[in-house]
Amino acid sequence: MRKLDIKEIEDIALGAALLGAGGGGDPYIGKLVAMGAIKENGPVTLLEPEEVADDALIVAIAMMGAPTVLAEKAVGEKEYDTLRDMVSQFMGKEIDAVIPIEAGGVNSMLPIAACAHLGLPLVDADGMGRAFPELQMVTFTIGGINSCPMALTDEKGNSVLYKTISNKWTEELARSVTMSCGGAVSVALYPMTGKQLKQYGVKNIVTRSQKLGEAIRTVKKHTDDITPEEHFLKFSEGYKLFKGKISDVLRETRGAFNFGKVMLEGIGDYKGKEAFVEFQNENLLANVDGQILATVPDLICLVDAETFSPITTDALKYGKRVYVVGLKCFEMWRTEKGLELVGPRYFGCDTEYIPVEKRYKGGGANV
Amino acid sequence: MRKLDIKEIEDIALGAALLGAGGGGDPYIGKLVAMGAIKENGPVTLLEPEEVADDALIVAIAMMGAPTVLAEKAVGEKEYDTLRDMVSQFMGKEIDAVIPIEAGGVNSMLPIAACAHLGLPLVDADGMGRAFPELQMVTFTIGGINSCPMALTDEKGNSVLYKTISNKWTEELARSVTMSCGGAVSVALYPMTGKQLKQYGVKNIVTRSQKLGEAIRTVKKHTDDITPEEHFLKFSEGYKLFKGKISDVLRETRGAFNFGKVMLEGIGDYKGKEAFVEFQNENLLANVDGQILATVPDLICLVDAETFSPITTDALKYGKRVYVVGLKCFEMWRTEKGLELVGPRYFGCDTEYIPVEKRYKGGGANV
Repeated sequence: MRKLDIKEIEDIALGAALLGAGGGGDPYIGKLVAMGAIKENGPVTLLEPEEVADDALIVAIAMMGAPTVLAEKAVGEKEYDTLRDMVSQFMGKEIDAVIPIEAGGVNSMLPIAACAHLGLPLVDADGMGRAFPELQMVTFTIGGINSCPMALTDEKGNSVLYKTISNKWTEELARSVTMSCGGAVSVALYPMTGKQLKQYGVKNIVTRSQKLGEAIRTVKKHTDDITPEEHFLKFSEGYKLFKGKISDVLRETRGAFNFGKVMLEGIGDYKGKEAFVEFQNENLLANVDGQILATVPDLICLVDAETFSPITTDALKYGKRVYVVGLKCFEMWRTEKGLELVGPRYFGCDTEYIPVEKRYKGGGANV
Repeated sequence: MRKLDIKEIEDIALGAALLGAGGGGDPYIGKLVAMGAIKENGPVTLLEPEEVADDALIVAIAMMGAPTVLAEKAVGEKEYDTLRDMVSQFMGKEIDAVIPIEAGGVNSMLPIAACAHLGLPLVDADGMGRAFPELQMVTFTIGGINSCPMALTDEKGNSVLYKTISNKWTEELARSVTMSCGGAVSVALYPMTGKQLKQYGVKNIVTRSQKLGEAIRTVKKHTDDITPEEHFLKFSEGYKLFKGKISDVLRETRGAFNFGKVMLEGIGDYKGKEAFVEFQNENLLANVDGQILATVPDLICLVDAETFSPITTDALKYGKRVYVVGLKCFEMWRTEKGLELVGPRYFGCDTEYIPVEKRYKGGGANV
């Protein structure tokens, strides 16, 4: 158990944005929301999963929708009250603690804001260990945990409660309403026991985000005799897939998702080479000179070539110099059930899943 | 108080289909569902509105979606249990009685089936006195009655509960989910007190439907010295707007609505004339030789030229010979608030509302 205060927020937001793999929202927006809530209500208690009682009621709180829209909408604190009341009423029980559903600039932060406002502890675990675009894409689905009763509310005061036959149906029906509500809404979902969380959650994700954020923030201050690039790849345990300049960004907002492709021209060691990264909110596939070097569910992260700050898909801009880095995903995603939910074919990428460390053929500064 | 048994059903379905003004679904499907439920569970008690206690909890039960889709989907009895349980749980109170939301071949019948299955009485009142395509288009909206908590369920077992800021928002968010569920779902909405129902409901609509149905069924057996046409116009209190042969039907299913236009070539007294009727699930506007003869909210009904059976918009077929008949709508629709909700301009028809009896210039056999 420890406290999350304002000074922890910046690093968590930064590290979570890296794990967002291009999605999960803008960490700047996210941290403002979390800091505002802590300033008003005081620090938030972060529990280790092992500190949660087996029969505790845990619920994930998140924003749902296209990150681009999400950045333009305000997040009202009364939305958290609505979500808590709806879930409690339907479960016939008070909520004991909150978890983030995914790691990402916004969706790692909103649960902290919700906890500050509701006076509830946050548990150091989520359902993805990264960000994914659809709500059934959580380790909890692998564990047979129901996303419902799920509560949804918008900033106008409309609210909807779901009980569905599958998590994929929850996604389908919640996505429709999200679009009708303007493209982004707040949700509370996957009410589960402490026992279920401990069995299927991705543990220590908040702490990992914070450490990653701290390392990125101080990447140029390290005292080892290695370059910042080498240092970044070491602490992130990343595979360097490409270094280049953004030459084009193709985007489309469709079905409350941001779809697109970013084109890159090689710089440094990669001069003369070309690459592209496809995304659906999150980065899905990295292709360098005609060869696929990484796919979902592994994390494909674009970071600024100077500062190593993560760049979300909605912040991609022509001319920006970036590294493309691959990170291993949580091991549960590499099982058959995991790949059914979030493998490359689910996203329409015509390739088998091959772990990034096997696709990686060397040539970078990976350690 | 009286009982609705199998023998009453056929006439109610037939008359309600006339009042459906082209919408409200296929009376053949509707009556099979209601008869099946009565056969299994026994007759349904029909209460006069005055027999309902002021503090009773009344709820409307209906199908939502495009009538064309509705005809192709099964209606499972367990859907009624789900709807009752959801509404009761959220209201914290048992439901005392059910009402139809509108008059129509299906939506007058499903509440009867629901009552038979749930062992609840039906009240002889609805919220339209005809059929309309959107759920906020009820006299209850004029009375400031909330459509929520509204429960929605599909045949697969998905269910959704709404609490919105306006009945128009309920429509918007329920329509999205209806489309995602395949185009037709079952809903329970407008939970209200007996007092509210008595104040704003369209009373005696079931009895009126039954009388109309009986008159249509026996239209050729009457003993007066008038023709069947004269007889039909007399008992329906209808204005004869046109008699013609269907020369074309334009259709489009869009946003879970059936949109379209039926073109007519005059026959009999109308030989050499042309007419068309525009619809959105229900008929919206009748135009004869370039002149608008009726618009919503007045009822525009197409009936078979031989049998006087109502023809729903999804049953319109090339070559069919029909009467186009105008019926006065419930008086509350003719107020300013009523016309805001269901006037011709709401439906995109570029004309003021002029009551059918004023637009009517004679020339027919109206009495």
